[in-house]
Amino acid sequence: MRGGYPSSRRDATLGDSELGTRPSIFPETAAVDGHGHLLIGGSDTVELARGFGTPLYIFDETTLRHRCSEFIEEFTSRYSDTLVIYASKAFINRSLALIFTEQGLGLDVVSGGELSIARSVDFPMEKVYFHGNNKSKEELELALGWGVGHIVVDNFYELSLLDGLAREKNITQQVLLRLSPGVDPHTHRYATTGVIDSKFGFPIVTLQAEEALSRALSSSNLNLIGLHFHLGSPIYELQPYQEAMRIALGFAAEMKERHGFELRELDTGGGFAIQYTRGEPAPSVAEYAEVIIETMLAECDSLGLERPRLIVEPGRGIVGQAGVALYTVGATKDIPGVRKYISVDGGIGDNIRPALYGARYEAVVANRANDEEKERVTIAGKLCESGDILIRDIYLPHLESGDIIAIPSSGAYCLAMASNYNSALKPAIVMVKDGK
Amino acid sequence: MRGGYPSSRRDATLGDSELGTRPSIFPETAAVDGHGHLLIGGSDTVELARGFGTPLYIFDETTLRHRCSEFIEEFTSRYSDTLVIYASKAFINRSLALIFTEQGLGLDVVSGGELSIARSVDFPMEKVYFHGNNKSKEELELALGWGVGHIVVDNFYELSLLDGLAREKNITQQVLLRLSPGVDPHTHRYATTGVIDSKFGFPIVTLQAEEALSRALSSSNLNLIGLHFHLGSPIYELQPYQEAMRIALGFAAEMKERHGFELRELDTGGGFAIQYTRGEPAPSVAEYAEVIIETMLAECDSLGLERPRLIVEPGRGIVGQAGVALYTVGATKDIPGVRKYISVDGGIGDNIRPALYGARYEAVVANRANDEEKERVTIAGKLCESGDILIRDIYLPHLESGDIIAIPSSGAYCLAMASNYNSALKPAIVMVKDGK
Repeated sequence: MRGGYPSSRRDATLGDSELGTRPSIFPETAAVDGHGHLLIGGSDTVELARGFGTPLYIFDETTLRHRCSEFIEEFTSRYSDTLVIYASKAFINRSLALIFTEQGLGLDVVSGGELSIARSVDFPMEKVYFHGNNKSKEELELALGWGVGHIVVDNFYELSLLDGLAREKNITQQVLLRLSPGVDPHTHRYATTGVIDSKFGFPIVTLQAEEALSRALSSSNLNLIGLHFHLGSPIYELQPYQEAMRIALGFAAEMKERHGFELRELDTGGGFAIQYTRGEPAPSVAEYAEVIIETMLAECDSLGLERPRLIVEPGRGIVGQAGVALYTVGATKDIPGVRKYISVDGGIGDNIRPALYGARYEAVVANRANDEEKERVTIAGKLCESGDILIRDIYLPHLESGDIIAIPSSGAYCLAMASNYNSALKPAIVMVKDGK
Repeated sequence: MRGGYPSSRRDATLGDSELGTRPSIFPETAAVDGHGHLLIGGSDTVELARGFGTPLYIFDETTLRHRCSEFIEEFTSRYSDTLVIYASKAFINRSLALIFTEQGLGLDVVSGGELSIARSVDFPMEKVYFHGNNKSKEELELALGWGVGHIVVDNFYELSLLDGLAREKNITQQVLLRLSPGVDPHTHRYATTGVIDSKFGFPIVTLQAEEALSRALSSSNLNLIGLHFHLGSPIYELQPYQEAMRIALGFAAEMKERHGFELRELDTGGGFAIQYTRGEPAPSVAEYAEVIIETMLAECDSLGLERPRLIVEPGRGIVGQAGVALYTVGATKDIPGVRKYISVDGGIGDNIRPALYGARYEAVVANRANDEEKERVTIAGKLCESGDILIRDIYLPHLESGDIIAIPSSGAYCLAMASNYNSALKPAIVMVKDGK
């Protein structure tokens, strides 16, 4: 399995700098200037840090748009009837939603809040998929009122609630059913959603999925057009997708035979990993596309199913690499023989992933990006909590107070889960492109 | 070790209700009315939930004020020169800060944000202690400008930074030094702060604490009046306090001999546990007070030290029991032979403690508080994350959509760490007293 993106893109802007070794971790436009400063989108990150203050999150518009195109190209070139929808929960705001509209993506939303952001930028509602294990009556009414194209029904309660609400409004709502396929994607247990013991979806083995399908087909105001599963995230292996697709398509074939169900859409969820550290490469988008589409086509042929529209839901895969977090070094604490702590001015308030999932990150010193990495340090946040550690044991140049630390691959699930713990403010966000 | 509060208080309002068995988990005013509704502060929680919507956090003013008084009484009755200061990081806003001022507490702040909340209610600055492992220059300037009584210096960088800033302003700032005593309080490793491998404080065994003390004594604009340690939180054992006090006081005695240091204040931090579940009682405030004061007095006598002012920093111990979170049941999912999931309309967005620390909670059905608990269920949140589970495997009455779940002991570190994950709004907060 190969990490990162094609080498032609890899070295375009990086020259011989230190960054040349970790191209798919940093945004595509990352470069180092003559002063050893990290540039992103043509902007000097050190100046951005000084101008906006830290912690600061920078998003590279070029990387964002390229990831959108890459997902669309890699999937549609292999199977034209694919719709790529962005999983908002990774991180969404109005600016991002606008970019995704322009790039032709659909949108996966999981709450009335995310739906409202989509609505506020006139996101085409027919390309919106509404997910969630406990949508409220109010949220479903909002979705029906705004003409959300697809509601992914998670459970029996929602099935009858939605049918009733659609009936009241005299609407026939297109729905998919979320399956719980019972596949373990080997990610953090908190990020595992497709196993049987899950709050999400209808389990197949318990026959609840069949009962849900049968009820949906006979619901007066629901039009069941497809099936959905989501295995978890991030998934660094390809085989769980194969396994889940075989289970879902096998289920669809059985349901066709037993209930006359026609599978028109298969939504295989997201979970596409990105590279966070040098030692842990992620599959390329092409590799994910290849295995998903190959499996789908082969299974449909062998089961005698019409080929459905394919829906894929990258979130992290689109926004992760585009985001870089900047922090300023404050106190350093060298405990001889134990550990050297470098404290920065952010932490679990803006990125709880290390504490919550044991997530690992890389870092560079943005104001001295070419300096030799000669000291093993631990990057600690400033919050009053021992778990407020961003990176444990990383080799970096010798650091001084005032140095700027850049942590790449910070676009997904950082700001999305940010809190105001310790009455800290949430970080500013800057989108960069062509030096602006 | 005994859990909870004196039995005279325990049964005052609870009668023979179901709640009678878990008095120190719920607020003191908790009761059940004739309809089986949970009352807090004289208000019907079911009505509050309907009126304000859920998730909703209710704080009982009576419990809050009693916990403040209890801490003050239990400590000052044993040793009059004790100052109880509230640890804001557990949860702070202007209303709470006002109550704490009225009750005569001091305040432990860890950021410019918390300091600003204190300032906004004219909190007496001489009773404010400013903590943190990475206070910024701007925060220290703010603290000096506002006349914060005590700054607890965590590291060498801060020591020289603060001395320089105080010199610029021609101020002599009272400071304490945070020690890293090397004591393991046997709590979650994220909540362990006093061991040697910690981002917090000056380790004693490495001689860095002595060097810091010597530097502080010779700093022109710092007046070193005391020492601080904080072991972590919550600490269910008393012995770690004893151990740490002996180490800190032993250190003070040595420093007196070697550097002429006079210990005028000893700040033993917080960490006071509360009872979250029936099976895990916490020590009473009296027990904590007894062991801390007894150890301090005995050690001072045996070491020939003057008795210092004692500072204690309850956060959770004051606010935890006063808060109750209310959620509405939506979808339920029974996976035969596996688990029954009850989904509510909040989750890790408003309470990340179960996911982050493996924290356990109890729950009651607020609209049927006397019903028999006959079904084992798992309370799941509504966020798109498998880790969004509030309580795993709890026995509750058979639940229906629309039932109101009350989770007690939710006053500390829930709202304080709340996020807008999944673009969800933060919950409303209601303070109740005498039915208002």
